[in-house]
Amino acid sequence: MEREGTSAPRRRVCESWRGGAASGYFGALSTRKTAVFTLYDYLDSGNGYKIRLLCALVNEPYRWVEVDILTGATRTPQFLAKNPNGRIPTLELDDGSFLAESNAILWYLAEGSPFIPNERLSRARVLQWMFFEQYSHEPYVATPRFIKKHFPADSPRQAELPKRLQQGRAALAIMDAHLNKEDFFVAGRYTIADIALYAYTHVADEGGLDLAPYPNVRTWIARVASQPRHVPLERRP
Amino acid sequence: MEREGTSAPRRRVCESWRGGAASGYFGALSTRKTAVFTLYDYLDSGNGYKIRLLCALVNEPYRWVEVDILTGATRTPQFLAKNPNGRIPTLELDDGSFLAESNAILWYLAEGSPFIPNERLSRARVLQWMFFEQYSHEPYVATPRFIKKHFPADSPRQAELPKRLQQGRAALAIMDAHLNKEDFFVAGRYTIADIALYAYTHVADEGGLDLAPYPNVRTWIARVASQPRHVPLERRP
Repeated sequence: MEREGTSAPRRRVCESWRGGAASGYFGALSTRKTAVFTLYDYLDSGNGYKIRLLCALVNEPYRWVEVDILTGATRTPQFLAKNPNGRIPTLELDDGSFLAESNAILWYLAEGSPFIPNERLSRARVLQWMFFEQYSHEPYVATPRFIKKHFPADSPRQAELPKRLQQGRAALAIMDAHLNKEDFFVAGRYTIADIALYAYTHVADEGGLDLAPYPNVRTWIARVASQPRHVPLERRP
Repeated sequence: MEREGTSAPRRRVCESWRGGAASGYFGALSTRKTAVFTLYDYLDSGNGYKIRLLCALVNEPYRWVEVDILTGATRTPQFLAKNPNGRIPTLELDDGSFLAESNAILWYLAEGSPFIPNERLSRARVLQWMFFEQYSHEPYVATPRFIKKHFPADSPRQAELPKRLQQGRAALAIMDAHLNKEDFFVAGRYTIADIALYAYTHVADEGGLDLAPYPNVRTWIARVASQPRHVPLERRP
């Protein structure tokens, strides 16, 4: 989803989480913390937003570096040295190494927190929904949004939309059926499976997917957004 | 990757793992075990093979039910009740519940085994490569193989091949660069990240991807295939 070009990254530390007053799940972590992670990200990316949302929920401070995927800043030699797959989000750790793939970063940051269940099968079910998200949802919910936002009406990529949206509706129908009896995707509580699926689902309309036929999805979106410490996608760290 | 239709599933228990002589990692697990899992699978599926390979490595017995994805057996109401996403592999647990997504099933079965590292960052790196596999590799390495095997030369789906294969080569190049300094993908040893990536990479040529330009990938393929208790994709359980 990135094109060639260069762009100087913007660096800013997410000061707002530094020792901010804690509430919600992680009150115990409200002691003053220094950022140990750097998140390479793009504000409008749902995949990047997953990490920003989790960090807000668990009060994890981080440095935030915006990388302009529209001008190819993820395809420079400098960025490819961080992530050879040329994608954001990419997390830089305090030892200078890097971790890629939004859902792997979620897992890394959430291990030991209430956002990953302890029970073996529930943990696997969290992964089941996160793999569903990357294989059966993201290409059909996120990519149409990207095409509609960033490609002109006469771009050949517009021709991809009907088939992608059809598969996007299939993914939403699966989610809606599951949420008919569940408040959250796994173990009856808010986990990183919800975070992974929320990221692009709540803005699916921007890609041309009307959420009206999926009432359980809409109720779940409101439920996620009402959780303590929630932050919206468009909020710059 | 499945089409409409019906097909009666074939049921067979994987007797060969039942109390078979153990060697390799799981010698301690060689005591007689009864199958507690049922794997819904299709022999030629690399995603299904991931599970068969892990179960062979850890000497886990299971019942094996072949579901013919070519005649739509994964789209029947009966199968959709097991996995609403209509895909194999799907694992049935002893409590009658189901777990989907090949890489989530790998994680579930391998937790507590040497095939998932204990260290937090290594665990996340295993997931990083498994998400890479599903998002940046499987659609471009596995799907071309499926198209070439199952669609006629004049099918519109053949038109997908050039772009898919281009992205497949990009995925193989990323793997090859990583393996230039590593024997396995994570933590210097054989993990489920290798199993996930091996499944379709070692038959990439069947989809039109020549592995000659990727010498480290070829060496790694031979290394995986030489591990104790290895089974080939085409071996029926």
